[in-house]
Amino acid sequence: MSVEELLKVHGKPPREVYFDNENSGHVPREVVEEMIPYFNSVGYGHPSITHRPGWEAYEVIHRTKELLAEVLNAGGVGEFALVHSGTEANNLAVLGHAIANREGGGKIVVSAIEHLSVIHPAEEAGRLFGFKVVRVPVDSEGFVDPEIFKEVVDRDTSLVSVQMVNHEIGTVQNVYELSKIAKEVNPKAVFHTDAADAFGKLPMDLKKLEYVDMVTLSSHKIHGPRGVGALFIREGVRLEPILRGQLSSEKMWPGVENVPLIAGFRKAVELAFQDFDINVAKMRMLRDVLVRGILDRVPEVLLNGPADFSRRAPDNANLSFLYVEGEALTVELSINGVYVSSGSACTSRILEPSHVLLAIGRKHEEAHGSILFKTTRYHTQEDIDYTLEVIPRAVSRLRSISAARRT
Amino acid sequence: MSVEELLKVHGKPPREVYFDNENSGHVPREVVEEMIPYFNSVGYGHPSITHRPGWEAYEVIHRTKELLAEVLNAGGVGEFALVHSGTEANNLAVLGHAIANREGGGKIVVSAIEHLSVIHPAEEAGRLFGFKVVRVPVDSEGFVDPEIFKEVVDRDTSLVSVQMVNHEIGTVQNVYELSKIAKEVNPKAVFHTDAADAFGKLPMDLKKLEYVDMVTLSSHKIHGPRGVGALFIREGVRLEPILRGQLSSEKMWPGVENVPLIAGFRKAVELAFQDFDINVAKMRMLRDVLVRGILDRVPEVLLNGPADFSRRAPDNANLSFLYVEGEALTVELSINGVYVSSGSACTSRILEPSHVLLAIGRKHEEAHGSILFKTTRYHTQEDIDYTLEVIPRAVSRLRSISAARRT
Repeated sequence: MSVEELLKVHGKPPREVYFDNENSGHVPREVVEEMIPYFNSVGYGHPSITHRPGWEAYEVIHRTKELLAEVLNAGGVGEFALVHSGTEANNLAVLGHAIANREGGGKIVVSAIEHLSVIHPAEEAGRLFGFKVVRVPVDSEGFVDPEIFKEVVDRDTSLVSVQMVNHEIGTVQNVYELSKIAKEVNPKAVFHTDAADAFGKLPMDLKKLEYVDMVTLSSHKIHGPRGVGALFIREGVRLEPILRGQLSSEKMWPGVENVPLIAGFRKAVELAFQDFDINVAKMRMLRDVLVRGILDRVPEVLLNGPADFSRRAPDNANLSFLYVEGEALTVELSINGVYVSSGSACTSRILEPSHVLLAIGRKHEEAHGSILFKTTRYHTQEDIDYTLEVIPRAVSRLRSISAARRT
Repeated sequence: MSVEELLKVHGKPPREVYFDNENSGHVPREVVEEMIPYFNSVGYGHPSITHRPGWEAYEVIHRTKELLAEVLNAGGVGEFALVHSGTEANNLAVLGHAIANREGGGKIVVSAIEHLSVIHPAEEAGRLFGFKVVRVPVDSEGFVDPEIFKEVVDRDTSLVSVQMVNHEIGTVQNVYELSKIAKEVNPKAVFHTDAADAFGKLPMDLKKLEYVDMVTLSSHKIHGPRGVGALFIREGVRLEPILRGQLSSEKMWPGVENVPLIAGFRKAVELAFQDFDINVAKMRMLRDVLVRGILDRVPEVLLNGPADFSRRAPDNANLSFLYVEGEALTVELSINGVYVSSGSACTSRILEPSHVLLAIGRKHEEAHGSILFKTTRYHTQEDIDYTLEVIPRAVSRLRSISAARRT
C-alpha cells in the first residue's frame, strides 16, 4: 500500500493528541506568525549585507543570541553558534573538537545512552582521526555512576559528552558533578552536554555549570520550528567548523543564517521561559496522570527510566507494553488519533531496538514494545483522558491478536 | 551606531526594489502559504514514524524528490539528497567524496571562481586527508578554457567541481564538455557541478548530462525558503555522509527532515518550472534593460562577466562603478530602497575583494566598486525605471564626495 492510499483508508479520528514531541512537534500559531514577515517583508535579506533587509536580519540574530544568554545566564562567558538542528550542534561539538584537536588524539568518553548524533560523530572521530571512543555504562534507570565515570576519564581524555536529559527515558544526569570530576582528573578535557531535552524543562545556569564547555540546544524541542539548533561554546574552547564556505555573522557554520526560523526560535524561547515554572508544572502534572493512568488500566507494563520522578524530565513517559509490537501499537493508536513513537524515537523504519533501552538492560522484546510520550504545556486534561480511553483498548486488541497467533 | 539606531535613521523609502537575490530573497506569499499548514496541522510529524502526521510528512519529501526528478529529467539515474542549504550540499559533495575516497587520495580540481562552499571544503579535504587541490584559471569573462582544463585533469584526479553558472558574474560554463573531457582522461574521476544559480534559469537535463555525477541545487535561489538544499547523486557514485547521527528517510544527512520548508521548496520548484520560458524571458528582459540603462546613464562603469549575454545567466548583472566604494554605494542605494550587494556577494563585512573578480583580472579597486544585481520574474518595469533614476544620482553623489576628498 502506498503512503497516499494508507492515508486515505486511515480516516480522520474524532480527536488528535500528539505526543511524539521527541521527534518533531506542533509549532504554535503565535510562533508561526512571528516568522511570516521575515519571509518577505522585513529582515528577508542576508544579515551581513549593508542594506535595510540585511540590517533587520542581523538584528534578529543578535537579539536571539542575547535572549539565549539571558535565559541561560551565559552573558560574558561564551557564545552561541546557530546551526540548523540539534543534530548539527552535536556534530559541531564532537567533530569540531576532533578536527581542532586531532594532533593530540586521545579518548572521547560518552555515556552509553547518548543521542546517536553524539555517539556516531564520536565513532567517526575515531575512524577518521584515531580517537579512542569509550562508552560509559549506565544503571537500570540510565544514570551514569560517578564512581565508574571517575575510572574511565583519565589524563588522556580529550572530550567528554554526557547529556543533561536522556531523550528517550528522561533520565536527568548530574552534569555538574560529572563535569567537575572530568576537570579534576584532567583540566584540559573538554566537557560537552547535549541539553536539547533539558532546555525549557529544567532550570539551567551556564555560569553555575562552570565546568561545562559546550551545550547543545534545539528549537523544535521547545515548540520552535525545526531548522534551528544552537551550540553554546564557552570562551577559550578550541573548536573548528566542520563545514566550510562563506561565513556570515555566524562564524562556526557557513551559509546564510535562516532568519525567519531564527525569529520563530526566539519567540519559542520567550514563550517557554516567560512562565517557566507554570509550563513545567503543567507538563509534569499531565505526564504523572498519564503514567499513573496507564499503569492502573493496563497490566504488564514496564516503566522505562527513573521511577523517582524528581530525577526524570517533567515531560517524559516511556513505557514498555509487554506482548505487543511497538510499531503495531503506534499504528493502532494513530488510527485513534493518538500519535506516539516506539522502540527508539527515530530509529523506526529501521527496526532495531533502541540502544538506550538495551543499555538499561531491557530485553529486545521489551524494547520493541516500548512507547514514548512527551507531554507539553499545550496538552489538556481532556487529551490525557481521551488517551487513557484509547490505550487500554488498543493494547488489549493487539494482545488478543498476538495471543491468537501464538496458539 | 547600533543596528537598531541605524534602522531608525534610515527611514522607509518611497519604493523598495530588492536585487540581492544572490544572498537571500523574498519568498512569495503563495510559497509561504504552502508551508504554513505543515507547522501544526498536517505532516508536522517525523517522516519515519508510523503515525498519520509522519506519513503525511513522508509524502511531502517523496513528492518533492519526484518533482525534482521530473523537472530535471533524472528519473532512474540517481537520487536527490535533501540538506539545509546549497552550502551544505556543496560540502556533502566535496567532503563526502573526500571521506569516501580518502584512502586513494589524489587531486581535487576546481575552477578558480567556484563558490567558497566548494573551494574551502576542497582545501579542507587537502588539509585533513592529503588531497592536492588545483584551481583551474578562468579567462577575463570567467570561462574555463577546455584546453587548459585538459592539461590539469589527469589520471590522478579524484574529484572535479566546476559550477554551471557563476554566482557573481553569471558565466555559463560548458559543463557538458568539461565533464566529458574529465571522464575521457580519467573515467574514475567524479564530476560535481554547483548548479544553484542555473536551476530554474537554464534548461537542465540530467540524463543528457551523463558525465556529471553530482549536482547542487538550492531552494532560496528560486524563491523557495532558505533551509533546503539538494544534492543530486548519480547512481553508483561513492559518497559518505559528512555529519553523523540518526537517519530518517534521508540517508545522506542525519536529523529530522524540515518538512514545512521542503513543502515550500516544492511549491517554489513548481512555480519556477510551470512557466519556465516566460519566467526566464522576463528576468532576461529586465536585466537587459537594467544593464543598458546603467551603461547609458553612468560613465566609467565596467561590466563584469560575459559581454555576450547568450553565455550569461539571464538574471545576472554585475557592474563595477569606478571611483566608488561598493559598500558605500550599497548603503546609499539602500537609503533609496534599492537593495544590492557589493564586492563579493556575501564577503561583505569582511572587506576582502571577491575572489571571483580578482580571478577574472579585476584590480582591487575595481572589485571593491562592483555591485551585483539579480533580476527575477517578480520585478516590474517600474522597478527597473525607479532603479535607473536612483543609481546615477547615488553614484555621482558618492563620486563628488570622493573627488572632493582627493583634492
